[in-house]
Amino acid sequence: MSKLTVELISVGTEILMGNIINTNAAYLAERCVRLGLNCYYQDVVGDNAGRLKSTIDTALGRADIVILCGGLGPTDDDLTKETAAACMGRELYLDEESKAAISDYFARIGRVPTDNNWKQAMMPKDSIILPNHNGTAPGCIIADKDKNKHVILLPGPPEELKLMFEESVEPYLSSLTPGAIVSKTVKVCGIGESKAETIISDLIKSQSNPTIATYAKTGEVHIRVSASADDEQAARKLVKPIVKELKERFGEAIYSTSDDVTLEKAVVDLIIGNELTVSTVESCTGGLLAGRLVSVPGVSDAFKSGLITYSNKSKRKLAGVKKSTLDKYGAVSKQTATEMVKGLAALTKSDITVATTGIAGPGGGTADKPVGLVYIACSVCGNVTVKECHFTGNRQKIRDNSVTAALNLMRQCILKYYSEKTFGKE
Amino acid sequence: MSKLTVELISVGTEILMGNIINTNAAYLAERCVRLGLNCYYQDVVGDNAGRLKSTIDTALGRADIVILCGGLGPTDDDLTKETAAACMGRELYLDEESKAAISDYFARIGRVPTDNNWKQAMMPKDSIILPNHNGTAPGCIIADKDKNKHVILLPGPPEELKLMFEESVEPYLSSLTPGAIVSKTVKVCGIGESKAETIISDLIKSQSNPTIATYAKTGEVHIRVSASADDEQAARKLVKPIVKELKERFGEAIYSTSDDVTLEKAVVDLIIGNELTVSTVESCTGGLLAGRLVSVPGVSDAFKSGLITYSNKSKRKLAGVKKSTLDKYGAVSKQTATEMVKGLAALTKSDITVATTGIAGPGGGTADKPVGLVYIACSVCGNVTVKECHFTGNRQKIRDNSVTAALNLMRQCILKYYSEKTFGKE
Repeated sequence: MSKLTVELISVGTEILMGNIINTNAAYLAERCVRLGLNCYYQDVVGDNAGRLKSTIDTALGRADIVILCGGLGPTDDDLTKETAAACMGRELYLDEESKAAISDYFARIGRVPTDNNWKQAMMPKDSIILPNHNGTAPGCIIADKDKNKHVILLPGPPEELKLMFEESVEPYLSSLTPGAIVSKTVKVCGIGESKAETIISDLIKSQSNPTIATYAKTGEVHIRVSASADDEQAARKLVKPIVKELKERFGEAIYSTSDDVTLEKAVVDLIIGNELTVSTVESCTGGLLAGRLVSVPGVSDAFKSGLITYSNKSKRKLAGVKKSTLDKYGAVSKQTATEMVKGLAALTKSDITVATTGIAGPGGGTADKPVGLVYIACSVCGNVTVKECHFTGNRQKIRDNSVTAALNLMRQCILKYYSEKTFGKE
Repeated sequence: MSKLTVELISVGTEILMGNIINTNAAYLAERCVRLGLNCYYQDVVGDNAGRLKSTIDTALGRADIVILCGGLGPTDDDLTKETAAACMGRELYLDEESKAAISDYFARIGRVPTDNNWKQAMMPKDSIILPNHNGTAPGCIIADKDKNKHVILLPGPPEELKLMFEESVEPYLSSLTPGAIVSKTVKVCGIGESKAETIISDLIKSQSNPTIATYAKTGEVHIRVSASADDEQAARKLVKPIVKELKERFGEAIYSTSDDVTLEKAVVDLIIGNELTVSTVESCTGGLLAGRLVSVPGVSDAFKSGLITYSNKSKRKLAGVKKSTLDKYGAVSKQTATEMVKGLAALTKSDITVATTGIAGPGGGTADKPVGLVYIACSVCGNVTVKECHFTGNRQKIRDNSVTAALNLMRQCILKYYSEKTFGKE
């Protein structure tokens, strides 16, 4: 079953200049994948008739569906509609319904339309007009049934684009696409991308349907398995055995197979699921670890307190680290990390306490304690585990990797604690 | 003086599938504009040799410089280097220096490279190799001096790409562009983009050289003034009066005119410059504020402690907020925010204490205290200021805006304190 292909064209000088990040393309791409469309190209082009025309023509030459966003505004440099219509051999006409909708919109927001607003009511002949319920510019679908080409025009503002896509475009595209695509993402933490790739190289080499792709995130690897079939159930059947195989190969390194579960959410779910409470004490990560935990909605039931003990004094005063320990082993040491989680547990009476202490750089490194050396400690109901990590890169990257490693250590320690509780300590 | 043109090609199925937002393109576009290059097209293509080749060939046909990012990884579906080299008629060879660098990298992080890592040391013949100081994959520049074409390959991970671009690519591109480009960025905080644009609409309308562009960041607006001239001094002369004008129009809303001064650095510089100490107590921002402050190198001299008092109990226990205050006014209130900074000052003896408490959502909102309501308090040597903010957007956006607003409030309070100390209270 050959899939329909879609090409996304974002129109706007502000994207070309880097004034704004092209989030529309990411949104549209994800939606199109869900609809079972293949997307091989995305383009960005400015508000220039010639370059826009050549981009649309190229796209029409290699894709069944071309989605354009942006350039539907009222100003003279908004050319998308005129240009796309010309590419499809259509003229523009004044659409009374769109004109009325624009009048209504301005009446609602208590403003008077300017003459150039009526430009937005000029629509390509024989096109499907897509009402804009979040703004003035209507979108449209110009279809050439004989050639099987579909050009879809959407407004640039994300809120207008999303609503219009979900209300009007998705139903249209679903009617075009036979079959279904199902994707599952296996999320692995604590294993580098190249190592993960080696572990499944045989699967990747032999892939066709489902397809398998690895995506590197900070301290994580996401493996996406996508299958297409006549219906969703058949697609699921194709994905299932591969995911099962990945689970066998990566075991507990997998923290989730759900698209909307982040590492921090997986950790918080474990904490809440076991009715635990958590507190953090951070040195080199300076609050970023707590920040990631607190980014999960609903964490407030479990998260008790966080400390940022950046100075030695605060490590002693707040986290109860002994002066002798700091003097003998230093702030960046297994011993200090251990006392930080123990002190925090005593202070906050939390089931889980986690600590980070390390050298994020650029300064502060020595021969035996180089920049990138980070100790992470996690205590689960009194059982303390300390991990020594060596990270590279700049200050930001070292801190981000430290946070990810801390989250993963928390996950592993909680799992270990409960498996030992269940099966008894070896 | 005709400008050189650049085309940006982002390589990666994860962008085509919408798994990640293409922030690299926005970053590269902004930097290229700064260098005085014209960008007419951006492309996204997947890890597919045929489609990648046609995209590179097309770009080489219409641009002087082609920058590719992504697809330099060790995995089999990383094809950018091989394909780009072929398009430029170059073969690959094993670069011993790159191989050694990769060995060193793995030694530093205490991991053993897998065989496919050496793929990253295969470089195009006669290319300029760009070291990667944040990861394993080196980049390179393949130049054809006769045809005046330059193909630049950069790694996909943003922190690797940015460092490599600023260290190696910018100097190279500057050497290609005749004359000089001077840019100055006026960084404004606390004023929305549309309001900022209205304030300078006359300047924007009449712009030619220097050009004036506004960039919206979270809670900030950056106004870039760029002038091109035969030499740097002449370009500076063109930029200077515009920057002066902007300073008059925006006044203290400007926190810096330096490219490498972030809002958090501006705040930390004020703190260190006045030999002050700082501590934070956060509720809704959950450590992100401390995280931004601690991201500034050298802050350790000034940053004493941070508290994350997410629960009411910890607000009382750690920050010394009165139970009666929480009962009467609630955790999200002017009164609680005030007691948080006062309690923190008493606990940590810091000159500056700052507190955030608010409703980041999605849950927890009420009619009189809706999602997005955030109170930010700042105490400078006992002088407390509280700001009530109303933010829109999702949980993440509300928290990010809260952090930016807190940093800006700190800045304003410190400036106010010292101006009053100098000129006497009105």
